[in-house]
Amino acid sequence: MKENKQQFSNTEIDDGLDELEKSHRLNRFESMLKFSRVISGSLSLKDIIKKAQGHTRKLLESEHVCIYLKDKSADYLSMTDQMGEEHSIAIDENSVVGSSAYLQATLKIDKGVSDIRFAREVLAIKKLRPKSMLVIPMVLNGELLGVIQATNSLNNNFNEQDIQFGEAVATQLTPVIQNAYLYEELHKQFIQVVEALADTITKKDSYTGGHTKRVSHFAMKIGSKLNLSWEEMNDLRLAAVLHDIGKIGIEDAILKKKAPLTDDEFAVMREHPRLGYEILKNVDSLSRVVDGMRFHHERPDGTGYPYGLKGDEIPIIAMIISVADTFDAMISTRPYRKGLPPMVAYEEIRKYSGTQFSSNVVEAFSEWFESTKMYSVNRLDSKKKAS
Amino acid sequence: MKENKQQFSNTEIDDGLDELEKSHRLNRFESMLKFSRVISGSLSLKDIIKKAQGHTRKLLESEHVCIYLKDKSADYLSMTDQMGEEHSIAIDENSVVGSSAYLQATLKIDKGVSDIRFAREVLAIKKLRPKSMLVIPMVLNGELLGVIQATNSLNNNFNEQDIQFGEAVATQLTPVIQNAYLYEELHKQFIQVVEALADTITKKDSYTGGHTKRVSHFAMKIGSKLNLSWEEMNDLRLAAVLHDIGKIGIEDAILKKKAPLTDDEFAVMREHPRLGYEILKNVDSLSRVVDGMRFHHERPDGTGYPYGLKGDEIPIIAMIISVADTFDAMISTRPYRKGLPPMVAYEEIRKYSGTQFSSNVVEAFSEWFESTKMYSVNRLDSKKKAS
Repeated sequence: MKENKQQFSNTEIDDGLDELEKSHRLNRFESMLKFSRVISGSLSLKDIIKKAQGHTRKLLESEHVCIYLKDKSADYLSMTDQMGEEHSIAIDENSVVGSSAYLQATLKIDKGVSDIRFAREVLAIKKLRPKSMLVIPMVLNGELLGVIQATNSLNNNFNEQDIQFGEAVATQLTPVIQNAYLYEELHKQFIQVVEALADTITKKDSYTGGHTKRVSHFAMKIGSKLNLSWEEMNDLRLAAVLHDIGKIGIEDAILKKKAPLTDDEFAVMREHPRLGYEILKNVDSLSRVVDGMRFHHERPDGTGYPYGLKGDEIPIIAMIISVADTFDAMISTRPYRKGLPPMVAYEEIRKYSGTQFSSNVVEAFSEWFESTKMYSVNRLDSKKKAS
Repeated sequence: MKENKQQFSNTEIDDGLDELEKSHRLNRFESMLKFSRVISGSLSLKDIIKKAQGHTRKLLESEHVCIYLKDKSADYLSMTDQMGEEHSIAIDENSVVGSSAYLQATLKIDKGVSDIRFAREVLAIKKLRPKSMLVIPMVLNGELLGVIQATNSLNNNFNEQDIQFGEAVATQLTPVIQNAYLYEELHKQFIQVVEALADTITKKDSYTGGHTKRVSHFAMKIGSKLNLSWEEMNDLRLAAVLHDIGKIGIEDAILKKKAPLTDDEFAVMREHPRLGYEILKNVDSLSRVVDGMRFHHERPDGTGYPYGLKGDEIPIIAMIISVADTFDAMISTRPYRKGLPPMVAYEEIRKYSGTQFSSNVVEAFSEWFESTKMYSVNRLDSKKKAS
């Protein structure tokens, strides 16, 4: 973004504007300040984009506003429509949005001009029968982050002041998006590092590796069916990644044993949730995550270990990990036995709903499982019919 | 912050203001928007506060602006003066700043009023001989984050518009400070989790625990003497925390052996930096950190392991960790030998400057060490005289 885009210079204000214009402009400035405060209050990209679209539509008095973000590794922009579906468009001169991104320049197309590029916008925009359009790139230190697209001005065409305020929106929005990226990146890095460490530990175990990653994956699928909040999903992911971390404290002789464990060895192994707690109990602000980890072998009927908690005493995050962990354990091949077909594991989990597993969680798990390719007629005919 | 503080309502603008006032106000709005963009562009608290102080001083046309932040766990505010020193002031009704925080209300004191509370401000403010003052609390969802204090209006007293814009600054600044806290917290959490895991692994080793934490501490001290950037310090801290992580992959029989290792065992042990690399190589955006970890047993003269790199081939972060790690290893007591006095370890490290250790790093290490209590006459008289 060029520095001078933010300039509404003194002379301009004192010279050209009559009193009515100034009042209109003051109102727009107030609206901009409010916008700036609202978007600064979040580090969630989804949240920021949603708020920015609504605000900009009103500010620019247009029928529709859409914000596209550049994919970091490839040359296209993407946007999520109201149905949650993602659409992408190439960064090239074939569409208005692509051109603005490609040239890193604001583009305005007036009503009555029939621009061939209208026909090459994403479907959601084509459906609006675009007549007038204003597209503004978001650029930080020469790097394109995305574009803002306003379609169909309610005042016939977009005017000079719309361009100024549209560019002001871009200028306010760009650093906020960048911060959200930085936060997401740090979070991702955190998860990846802990995942890599956790997987190295479980590799020593009789698993073939990748267990940690798969358990997180299944847990997130269950969590989203349960409509957990953004914060709860973050806690769940980290708790899933950390669920077996206490195994660091278990002797190699037991951890790496390539045969079923004796009763005594199993008693030692059963201490791993408690050992994990001992390792992480001093980490500030992680108590929900730690509980999700240390109670993942508890059972609603009280027969779990190592604490023997019952029913509501066990947090939902731990109950989700319990199902995800058991499911992966059953379908994974170990040195001393072959993994079960997913459908058999699924039936087994349903059988223990309410006793070994929380029935709410099993319901969410079933809902997800039945929407996957693992749940298919070809997999296991007889079992399928029984379900 | 009450919602209506941001309200500059339409009626007010259309009714009471003449054209000149409107222009002045437009200019202030422009300035506010620029401010909002600039502070949104950072997640570094120090940076945000510095920029906000400079901007607010100009906007409110005052001699001095100071921003205080509330300590999270205690009932006081603190500020850092231009010399980098921290001052604190109680949240109670004994000072203007403390009162504003205590009451969560804006306070304005005019010239000519001799307020007893002036005498109880922090020293840096008392030195300004405060005459007029405007203090505005920063509140998010009912929770106090800090206060903004403007001292000595250049226009005799602060007026109503100063209050409005001062409160607008507080409203813009509050969510930005909150985001910076969230980022810091996530980073701290990341470090704490990895530290806890790393320490559990090295505890299996012949160390007595706490090695990871001490090595990070020493490394950060050396890094700050070398004037590393904010990003480099972050990389250094994480690399130090991770430096022995490859030991996860070493057999318990070798790792936990309570006697000096045989040559064969030592050869296995020497692979730990490479094993650490294998664990973490797939983590995006962590390559500098990983290099800092995997080259921490390399030596400038080429006699290090496992890669045998030389001189400039070894990144500075790895060389810092090498000194910090060796220093802690020498002063720590192990099952088979007592730890050395710090002064002896220090002399030893100096002796190998340029061969085993980077001479720049040793210089920074010496500068730090000599400023600590470990470097004292009482510690080791004869050695001290030789240095």
